[in-house]
Amino acid sequence: MKVISTIKELRAELSKERQEGKTIGLIPTMGYFHQGHLELMRRAREECAVVVVSLYVNPTQFAPSEDFESYPRDFERDKRLAENVGVDYLFCPSNAEMYLPNHLTYVEVEKITNKLCGASRPHHFKGVTTVVAKLFNIVKPDKAYFGQKDAQQVVVIRKMVEDLNFDLEIVVVPTAREEDGLAMSSRNTYLSAVEREEALVLSKSLQHAKELIDSGERIAQKIKEEMQKLIKSKPHVNLEYISICDHKTLEELSRIEGETLIALAAKAGKVRLIDNIVIRD
Amino acid sequence: MKVISTIKELRAELSKERQEGKTIGLIPTMGYFHQGHLELMRRAREECAVVVVSLYVNPTQFAPSEDFESYPRDFERDKRLAENVGVDYLFCPSNAEMYLPNHLTYVEVEKITNKLCGASRPHHFKGVTTVVAKLFNIVKPDKAYFGQKDAQQVVVIRKMVEDLNFDLEIVVVPTAREEDGLAMSSRNTYLSAVEREEALVLSKSLQHAKELIDSGERIAQKIKEEMQKLIKSKPHVNLEYISICDHKTLEELSRIEGETLIALAAKAGKVRLIDNIVIRD
Repeated sequence: MKVISTIKELRAELSKERQEGKTIGLIPTMGYFHQGHLELMRRAREECAVVVVSLYVNPTQFAPSEDFESYPRDFERDKRLAENVGVDYLFCPSNAEMYLPNHLTYVEVEKITNKLCGASRPHHFKGVTTVVAKLFNIVKPDKAYFGQKDAQQVVVIRKMVEDLNFDLEIVVVPTAREEDGLAMSSRNTYLSAVEREEALVLSKSLQHAKELIDSGERIAQKIKEEMQKLIKSKPHVNLEYISICDHKTLEELSRIEGETLIALAAKAGKVRLIDNIVIRD
Repeated sequence: MKVISTIKELRAELSKERQEGKTIGLIPTMGYFHQGHLELMRRAREECAVVVVSLYVNPTQFAPSEDFESYPRDFERDKRLAENVGVDYLFCPSNAEMYLPNHLTYVEVEKITNKLCGASRPHHFKGVTTVVAKLFNIVKPDKAYFGQKDAQQVVVIRKMVEDLNFDLEIVVVPTAREEDGLAMSSRNTYLSAVEREEALVLSKSLQHAKELIDSGERIAQKIKEEMQKLIKSKPHVNLEYISICDHKTLEELSRIEGETLIALAAKAGKVRLIDNIVIRD
């Protein structure tokens, strides 16, 4: 595995690979790898001749009040894990490499970025789409891999790819979970023992929603109320939102119909966690 | 020359060309070709194995009050002219091909798009950068050609390419002028005889600015006043702005120093015209 920190060097390497007709897979990450990241890498390893992982904690997707500074980082461990999965290039640019001091250009997906997580994180997705567009232009992958864990991110990036005609395929990989069901997240490392225990209610409430739907419930409000009841029983977990929405437009649904996204965000202590399931009715 | 109207077909053709190792040059246009467009095509013809001209009157760069509907169009003439210059592909997508009904994604360059023409056309450059980003992703050119006539557009697109890491070279071609000096523009076709005659004052005022600078004047305000005096002498010409600014940041300068852009916009009758010169001190 080659560790590369400059755009110029990465481009030179990938240009050679491309000339040999090899397909390129990209996994954009912010590092501090868990099984979810490794699943994305394994999937890319199966499907592409060349696997590129970018490891970059992107400042433009954090608000000043958020955890950019304290976002967990462990480069040596990440490097070892990526190498073990068979990644070819680990791209770790500096902030100076990614953003010029006079950076002025942003890619923004409107409307669907104001809902769900976007309601409480108004500039988040503008930062995400901008850095992902940059990574797409730097790497020019045939396929790019994202986790279903970040459901809204997947919807927003798919829309960007469609609207701006990026010539690549987005591959979405199921959410990796701990044995007890907690969605894996780099931020889980912040959880205290009691927060970790109580945070389990998030995936349980989604499972409960699925059971309600399987047993015939179709009224979104009833399902939300049942989920809220479960989550409110945990004093360290503060619900931010539950959304039952169309899986493409993210418009709230009053009835479960067709492909439905059930997504939620909550804080366990100070740690913001998200989770979701997609129901195919 | 192949005339192509779908993204899919254009991609298939260019993919074959690229596999043969051919370089691709793109000239994005809104059609109604004049010598300025043909110069861009000739330059691309000299420098690239494959020349693609896009002909698309992009609705997102016109405000509702502007001349999108009446923008001059003459497809058969454009086709003949492009073919005569040796263009390989003329890409003429429909609006439905370029923008899905639920289009949500925009590329925006901040700050430098609020100055000069952006002050009176606040959404114009957002439309330009969005459609140019789309064309870059569709065509994936090695080089893209723009005219110096649209000086601010050149600065904005260069910034977008730099900030979003588009892997291509921007080539800027000098403004094509009529024999008497009027900058060529598709909109010149709208000018009445008297407007056409009086519009000449725009290029003359820029020439006068150059002469003042050549003879030692460095105070921007003095140069502007001299230019204004000339332009005000023409009753059918209404000046919108004169800007004497840094050629990259578009910040107004009080003194001429280094590479300076002198740009102006005015209406001759109802026809909005722009022109500029770059002074290399």
